[in-house]
Amino acid sequence: MKKFTSVHDAGEVQPLVRHAIEIKNGSGAPNIGKGKTLGLFFMNPSLRTRLSTQKAAYNLGMDVISMNLNQDGWKIEFDHGTIMDGDSQEHIKDAVKVMSSYCDVIGVRTFASLENKEKDYNEEILNAFVQYSEAPVISLESATRHPLQSLADLVTIEELKISKPKVVVSWAPHPKSLPQAVPNSFLEWISHTDAEVVLTHPEGYGLSPTFTEGISITHNQKEAFKDADVIYVKSWSSFEKYGENNGEFRDWVINEEKMRLTNEAHFMHCLPIRRNVIATDGVIDESMIYTQAKNREYAAQAVLEKIVKGL
Amino acid sequence: MKKFTSVHDAGEVQPLVRHAIEIKNGSGAPNIGKGKTLGLFFMNPSLRTRLSTQKAAYNLGMDVISMNLNQDGWKIEFDHGTIMDGDSQEHIKDAVKVMSSYCDVIGVRTFASLENKEKDYNEEILNAFVQYSEAPVISLESATRHPLQSLADLVTIEELKISKPKVVVSWAPHPKSLPQAVPNSFLEWISHTDAEVVLTHPEGYGLSPTFTEGISITHNQKEAFKDADVIYVKSWSSFEKYGENNGEFRDWVINEEKMRLTNEAHFMHCLPIRRNVIATDGVIDESMIYTQAKNREYAAQAVLEKIVKGL
Amino acid sequence: MKKFTSVHDAGEVQPLVRHAIEIKNGSGAPNIGKGKTLGLFFMNPSLRTRLSTQKAAYNLGMDVISMNLNQDGWKIEFDHGTIMDGDSQEHIKDAVKVMSSYCDVIGVRTFASLENKEKDYNEEILNAFVQYSEAPVISLESATRHPLQSLADLVTIEELKISKPKVVVSWAPHPKSLPQAVPNSFLEWISHTDAEVVLTHPEGYGLSPTFTEGISITHNQKEAFKDADVIYVKSWSSFEKYGENNGEFRDWVINEEKMRLTNEAHFMHCLPIRRNVIATDGVIDESMIYTQAKNREYAAQAVLEKIVKGL
Repeated sequence: MKKFTSVHDAGEVQPLVRHAIEIKNGSGAPNIGKGKTLGLFFMNPSLRTRLSTQKAAYNLGMDVISMNLNQDGWKIEFDHGTIMDGDSQEHIKDAVKVMSSYCDVIGVRTFASLENKEKDYNEEILNAFVQYSEAPVISLESATRHPLQSLADLVTIEELKISKPKVVVSWAPHPKSLPQAVPNSFLEWISHTDAEVVLTHPEGYGLSPTFTEGISITHNQKEAFKDADVIYVKSWSSFEKYGENNGEFRDWVINEEKMRLTNEAHFMHCLPIRRNVIATDGVIDESMIYTQAKNREYAAQAVLEKIVKGL
Repeated sequence: MKKFTSVHDAGEVQPLVRHAIEIKNGSGAPNIGKGKTLGLFFMNPSLRTRLSTQKAAYNLGMDVISMNLNQDGWKIEFDHGTIMDGDSQEHIKDAVKVMSSYCDVIGVRTFASLENKEKDYNEEILNAFVQYSEAPVISLESATRHPLQSLADLVTIEELKISKPKVVVSWAPHPKSLPQAVPNSFLEWISHTDAEVVLTHPEGYGLSPTFTEGISITHNQKEAFKDADVIYVKSWSSFEKYGENNGEFRDWVINEEKMRLTNEAHFMHCLPIRRNVIATDGVIDESMIYTQAKNREYAAQAVLEKIVKGL
Repeated sequence: MKKFTSVHDAGEVQPLVRHAIEIKNGSGAPNIGKGKTLGLFFMNPSLRTRLSTQKAAYNLGMDVISMNLNQDGWKIEFDHGTIMDGDSQEHIKDAVKVMSSYCDVIGVRTFASLENKEKDYNEEILNAFVQYSEAPVISLESATRHPLQSLADLVTIEELKISKPKVVVSWAPHPKSLPQAVPNSFLEWISHTDAEVVLTHPEGYGLSPTFTEGISITHNQKEAFKDADVIYVKSWSSFEKYGENNGEFRDWVINEEKMRLTNEAHFMHCLPIRRNVIATDGVIDESMIYTQAKNREYAAQAVLEKIVKGL
């Protein structure tokens, strides 16, 4: 594996999912990363990703260097040919070439602007890292995808051992505009399993057609929940009216009543979760969220192991 | 040891103090922490605690993940049942469960608001960590106690080899309102030794009765200093008029003249210290402060070793 | 080696340069730092220095503690005898004694105020670290020098294998006032080689005579470039009118036309570089900048190895 930025880099999905479960069950390769350094570069806050990826690297015997790019380093220029006479102090090309030259593997956390759809969906920042890095690049979430989260989600669902589960991806309300990276990425990964997938969201909150092609979509949340085995929840802002979320549709909150419509479904959410806005305390406290989060460690370890083996 | 938040978690105090001294003298267990990860989570600035605890973990062969919670992560909600529709992005329950799931031991640094006595003295934040953590929790200072500092202080006093020392805990002036954690905690720990303890402070700067029960108190600083073997100094704000410190009582500064009233006493302070406000340069430069600080490493190592052995 | 703050601490320069190249070629001492801790303390942003020094320490088997002093710790007082009644919370003397007591080697990154020439050129902060540290001190750039950069630069030039190269140090334009540390330090180090050195800058941008003694200086950039083998470029503010840079002399930018005046010279710059202000994209993309940056790792490793051997 030379990079890990989406399901398309993962090779066969099922073996990778099963390997993460094997690692969870104790069959890791504890010294494979000995003498190798993982560099983790963050452009926005992160808790689970920061901790789980660092722990996964330690599990493999790797050293880790962690950096908040905008805070510990210089202001970065992303455009080409610019006369760099303003605020930005270093070009992304130079920063990435240098940073990656000190590391055996790098991870980078970027984010959607939610202002410029083209820039976001072209993954300008992540792609600059992939283009200029001298080391393999792992996405720690990018503008449009969150592949380590999705892999952990697939591990979590696989552990449920439900044959052909009905997995419902539901939009939920939120006071702020959030990226589409998590649902995009989950849809991309879940389509590599035997799950039946239904996507439900209010009108105006559709995702990019690239990610929903061939997936059943309904604006009737309760209808969607019927017979569901997994309710995968996330808030996101509009793709069409890019980045918009007017804070409406509060009745899309996931509560116990709605969960009773399902086939005793498991509630999943990637965290952080705003309690009693996205879902009620009662739903969250009976959910898979902590298992999902813990599986981030094994997902990261499976990916790192595969990358380190290829060095 | 399943947690370390106060002297009540320490088991017998004297053996722990003696073990820290043994570690200082070279009898540590350098590989006991191999393959174990310590997570350090800070909610306010820290220098000694950050460095000494990390070094102690390295001495045991542990890996360390360090995080400034409010800066590198999300804004945290502490209340229960809240509709999380405002600034805070993640509930403490979810954050702690997840953070601790990636670590074998966690340390957390919280702080007193000095605005809400009840919240502070109920240790709401520290207790949430203890309640929700899946790993043992070490307090790296909390709203009302600083047990690793107190243990290091007892090590420092033990090394003086004075039988039944007279230990005077003296308030000192300071331009800002400071927590009561250090004196509270020191009084709690020193009462497990053979020391004679005297507490001296201006009227209005009494500590919580919980911590001063059975301790001799005087408002006459010079009287208190007579025959003292150890002068343990700290500024703190009022417990009664909670958090108040009007910057008065500048003449409570510790100077050479006052030190001459003692039995050639050793001056102790936990650092950071404001020179020529808390005490004069002359007093500080002849003091135990650097020994105290260095003993933080051995105190942390003794506690970590005991916790790791119990994993 | 007890400290590394300038070329004067380096012992013989050529053997150190050659040892860094040997390390690059694979003859490092991977376990010499085992059980030793390097503390890295930053007072301003840093990318290359932070990463390369940490990687060098890992290469030697060391543990690393990294801290942003003003952000993660307390506000520091530098003056002596002050009544510390204002903003600063801890005296540099106390902070350094304590920080260094937890580490086997420390590195510190300070910076020029560019406001007070005397304070800057007296290296008040770096010298306080050297004075009070209980462990050897490595400068990670100071107010007036950047010795790890200079050592990496000498490694880069040595690898070119040019006998008696003509090395031109050229000023370049920049929108902001920058320190003189890099050119000062480079001149100090390059004078220990067989290179012929020419310094060129606009009138008013001379460096301190301490660093330019015996070096040929011209205000005619094009004249200087003739027959050059290495063009070493940096912007700096005026030493005479201390810290001034009015943003003029834009025509001092290094472009392809000027490079054609040279003996197919190699362009060097320490990074970060403002593209199309300091030099054009065309010049930068054909330059030695990434080699220089990568050599920072081997320079740091050579210095750390020498210091660790002396512990």
